[in-house]
Amino acid sequence: MPSNYLNFRNSVPWVILLLEALFLTRSYFLFLGLDGLDSLRSSYPEFQDVNHMVIFGFGFFLMVLRRYGFSSTGFNLLIIVLGVQCSVLIEDLLVFFYLEANQGILKSIAKGFLSMTAVAISTGAVLGKTNLVQLIVMTLVELIVFYVSRWINRSYLEVGDHLSLMHVHLFGAYFGLAVASCFPEPSPRLDKNRSTPKSDLFSMLGSVFLWVFWPSFNSLLAQSRRKAVLNTYFALAVSAVTAFMLSALTSKDGKFRMTHIHGAVLAGGVTVSFTAQMISHPWIAMILGLLGSAITILGSHCLQRCLNPPLKIHDTSGVHFTFGLPAVLGALAQVVLLVIREWTNSSSLGYLVLLHIGAFCQTISLALITGVITGFILNTRPLKIIPVSKYFEDQFYWE
Amino acid sequence: MPSNYLNFRNSVPWVILLLEALFLTRSYFLFLGLDGLDSLRSSYPEFQDVNHMVIFGFGFFLMVLRRYGFSSTGFNLLIIVLGVQCSVLIEDLLVFFYLEANQGILKSIAKGFLSMTAVAISTGAVLGKTNLVQLIVMTLVELIVFYVSRWINRSYLEVGDHLSLMHVHLFGAYFGLAVASCFPEPSPRLDKNRSTPKSDLFSMLGSVFLWVFWPSFNSLLAQSRRKAVLNTYFALAVSAVTAFMLSALTSKDGKFRMTHIHGAVLAGGVTVSFTAQMISHPWIAMILGLLGSAITILGSHCLQRCLNPPLKIHDTSGVHFTFGLPAVLGALAQVVLLVIREWTNSSSLGYLVLLHIGAFCQTISLALITGVITGFILNTRPLKIIPVSKYFEDQFYWE
Amino acid sequence: MPSNYLNFRNSVPWVILLLEALFLTRSYFLFLGLDGLDSLRSSYPEFQDVNHMVIFGFGFFLMVLRRYGFSSTGFNLLIIVLGVQCSVLIEDLLVFFYLEANQGILKSIAKGFLSMTAVAISTGAVLGKTNLVQLIVMTLVELIVFYVSRWINRSYLEVGDHLSLMHVHLFGAYFGLAVASCFPEPSPRLDKNRSTPKSDLFSMLGSVFLWVFWPSFNSLLAQSRRKAVLNTYFALAVSAVTAFMLSALTSKDGKFRMTHIHGAVLAGGVTVSFTAQMISHPWIAMILGLLGSAITILGSHCLQRCLNPPLKIHDTSGVHFTFGLPAVLGALAQVVLLVIREWTNSSSLGYLVLLHIGAFCQTISLALITGVITGFILNTRPLKIIPVSKYFEDQFYWE
Repeated sequence: MPSNYLNFRNSVPWVILLLEALFLTRSYFLFLGLDGLDSLRSSYPEFQDVNHMVIFGFGFFLMVLRRYGFSSTGFNLLIIVLGVQCSVLIEDLLVFFYLEANQGILKSIAKGFLSMTAVAISTGAVLGKTNLVQLIVMTLVELIVFYVSRWINRSYLEVGDHLSLMHVHLFGAYFGLAVASCFPEPSPRLDKNRSTPKSDLFSMLGSVFLWVFWPSFNSLLAQSRRKAVLNTYFALAVSAVTAFMLSALTSKDGKFRMTHIHGAVLAGGVTVSFTAQMISHPWIAMILGLLGSAITILGSHCLQRCLNPPLKIHDTSGVHFTFGLPAVLGALAQVVLLVIREWTNSSSLGYLVLLHIGAFCQTISLALITGVITGFILNTRPLKIIPVSKYFEDQFYWE
Repeated sequence: MPSNYLNFRNSVPWVILLLEALFLTRSYFLFLGLDGLDSLRSSYPEFQDVNHMVIFGFGFFLMVLRRYGFSSTGFNLLIIVLGVQCSVLIEDLLVFFYLEANQGILKSIAKGFLSMTAVAISTGAVLGKTNLVQLIVMTLVELIVFYVSRWINRSYLEVGDHLSLMHVHLFGAYFGLAVASCFPEPSPRLDKNRSTPKSDLFSMLGSVFLWVFWPSFNSLLAQSRRKAVLNTYFALAVSAVTAFMLSALTSKDGKFRMTHIHGAVLAGGVTVSFTAQMISHPWIAMILGLLGSAITILGSHCLQRCLNPPLKIHDTSGVHFTFGLPAVLGALAQVVLLVIREWTNSSSLGYLVLLHIGAFCQTISLALITGVITGFILNTRPLKIIPVSKYFEDQFYWE
Repeated sequence: MPSNYLNFRNSVPWVILLLEALFLTRSYFLFLGLDGLDSLRSSYPEFQDVNHMVIFGFGFFLMVLRRYGFSSTGFNLLIIVLGVQCSVLIEDLLVFFYLEANQGILKSIAKGFLSMTAVAISTGAVLGKTNLVQLIVMTLVELIVFYVSRWINRSYLEVGDHLSLMHVHLFGAYFGLAVASCFPEPSPRLDKNRSTPKSDLFSMLGSVFLWVFWPSFNSLLAQSRRKAVLNTYFALAVSAVTAFMLSALTSKDGKFRMTHIHGAVLAGGVTVSFTAQMISHPWIAMILGLLGSAITILGSHCLQRCLNPPLKIHDTSGVHFTFGLPAVLGALAQVVLLVIREWTNSSSLGYLVLLHIGAFCQTISLALITGVITGFILNTRPLKIIPVSKYFEDQFYWE
């Protein structure tokens, strides 16, 4: 067994080196110009916000485990920079094969950051259970499948570029859950997968960070940025308030539970991500924020008691109810809003509704199917090395 | 008593629900358009800075107590999002009754954030002593009274919109002190209201955050932003230096005291807030920063020994000397600068000085009077639930 | 000895007061106008990024020692605000003597922040070993010498304004090392200069902060900002990936070492700082990031075993391999890139190469020579007070 460990550890750097060599070689023939920045020049602050949010915010958001702080922050950084480079490479290939117009590197990096949110979310579902090689394989597979899913949505289902990126929460959450379902459950007596007040505080720090920068996230590539910012802002505000309300209502003695607050304050931003740029009145965004937060907290009770035990899914940081359910709600809300808006124009209504439902089903089913396949691959012999008893341990990776 | 607790806890979510329902209903009839963003388009980064600063900075700034970290950060988030929504609703009513021009939602949100600073400061004075219902009631009352105070200043005392918002520190500090004077003092043997090195470090993190973003705060709605940014910057720099100097001079053996540094580095920003956009030469801002920092540190010694014990005021995180005294100094400096500038033009000088002193007296007296009334209401039977022995405890609110 | 301490402590505030009085007096005759902001108006967000990064990022980056957290953050803030004011004063004198055009105060402050990075880096080399008076003396001397070095580079070696500022890492690291070589080594049995998981986590937080804001740092005063941002971004991404790869390869059992990650993720940004605005293809920046990260990690092994023990240099937070070696590499890369680009134009090539190598040698030798002199001065009687046994202790400075 120790020799196994050693072999595995020796493989990690070579995998990374191989990938990096690939990126470097490819970037030598790069077709994306350094131009195209002008169109995004004015949005450099928003770009920095999203960069800051994905690297720093998710790094701390994932610090819920008591002995896994180094790995949460460190691996999040590694995976995101790998993923963004991979994303730039994919964009470059798309430009090369004339499948996409050349929009400059900065826009590719921005898309890369938005896409990597899917991976950061999936990581949350298997947090502490994957070794680094598994995590890297998962990142690459997930990123490529997400590109395929977006390409199907854009080409066949008439989903716009910005909107296809907003499926990121839906995809990330269900891909992560499908992968997690292939991992063995940790022993219930284990206390390493619990949080301490200190780790909860850091995680809250991450949540507040994500909360502050979410309007920039939802508006970075939107056409009508002003609407996207304001609607996201209102949805986030209502969901933060609702989180406190429902957390007190659903707990035994009226106390607040950190897990609820932690996930539900963000639910509004996830729910409204599909519709932020088309909602014309803030009260709709506020209702969506309220429903998103409610579904997160109710979901956290139902899922942890009813759904996860029979399905044997262990979702470490609760991405199902934090990102999955609000994203489903957001997709449904999009259809409902579409029906209301296009009610008079009944000729094209059915077609449009079909397209939207199709995009939703396509995203979620592709995520689940490829997630299960990925989970299966990750648990085959050459990759599966950590015993369940070593889960959730920084010491396994860090000196 | 336990049933009392339970009843109280059950009331918290309903209060929040009621408020949120009100905001939602009102926002359905919202008169503020989603327009008006254009004028603020270029200032989205500054808007984000202030958002970040109020939510994240004050959340950590208030983490001085050893066992109150969750509540400091969490309740700060809850109160600010409630307050900002309430502020948008008030702005909307003002637009509806033709008392104010429609300047778009983003500007209302920005004003809401600036106004909520008053509540965040007041919270510091009663930190750990109020339960959540008391805190919400205080937030709403303070926000409404601050709007009334601003309205009086604007309508009768010819104070501009930006300047009326800069009374926020003065109002927040004295309102908070007046409320705190109605709460019983905690036992001096209690050690829960002390700080640990860890909580001090987090609090320092919050201070440094506020320090970095203060120029954005003072310039967000100013007419001549460049001057406001630069003068605030110089005042902050000098006050940070002075804080270290005076902290070493006034302590017994020449060591630095974290409480001093923590409050006094910000004093310059508070002092200069009234005059940042009219000072034409940086050395004046620097002198103000020096005096602000000096009054904070000397004040912290005097107040804690001479004033607070006889008046039986227990000011948990020292808002009197951190925000109150520098704001008083800033208001006086404004009058002095006005006298110097308008000296030749003696006809209107007396009138202008009267207006400024009137605005100052009106703000501070309204804050004190309504603060005492609010404190009295908060200590009546239906709201007052926590016994003094349960002060400063996260466990009382969080699982 | 105790009376010695007391005397020393009593001297600290007076030194600060003297400096501050000087700045104040000088600023009364200030020649820099409050104008000139317009040219930097659009870059206020980047300015804020750099401000945030230097104050907050370096404050936490330097928190590697277990009992030195307060001093790392607090003294960093004090020294930077002192240094920036000093820098504005120097710029003002240069304008007064017609040595430089008046570019407005905001640009001077920005230059001050960039220059202060040298001091923040040098501080890392002597972290915990200097008392505050020594630190202030070092700050002032280093800042002035760096201005002299930049002036020589600009006047005699045809280095542009932005590029002369990018020598800041090179200068800071070798100045700091030269100063550190004059301090006695702490006892190897001492455990106070080790890090704990908690201090490592805070330091990682600082690293991630610096990482996120580094593109703004490298592009703040660059002519072609878009290139500078993108190239820095790619270099940082590759160096973060390489850091993980080489850390696992070089450690005994394939585990990651926090010290490696901590320094090497930033190496790309340092390496590329000289060339970021002239590299026309991202793959060159990526190669530089890879080499920078490699030299950092290999350097950290070589230096700590081979170079530091015989030279008796104790480099507390490893600035030699974190900033020094990547900066040397970056300067060499600049020459190589120049040779490749100007190969056809052989008439002026030799001259240009000479200029670049001259600027490099001038910076590094001036840093080393003045660093040793400064270190010698700091260890003379009136300044040297702390015994080696009191190194790395917050308690010595804070109540």
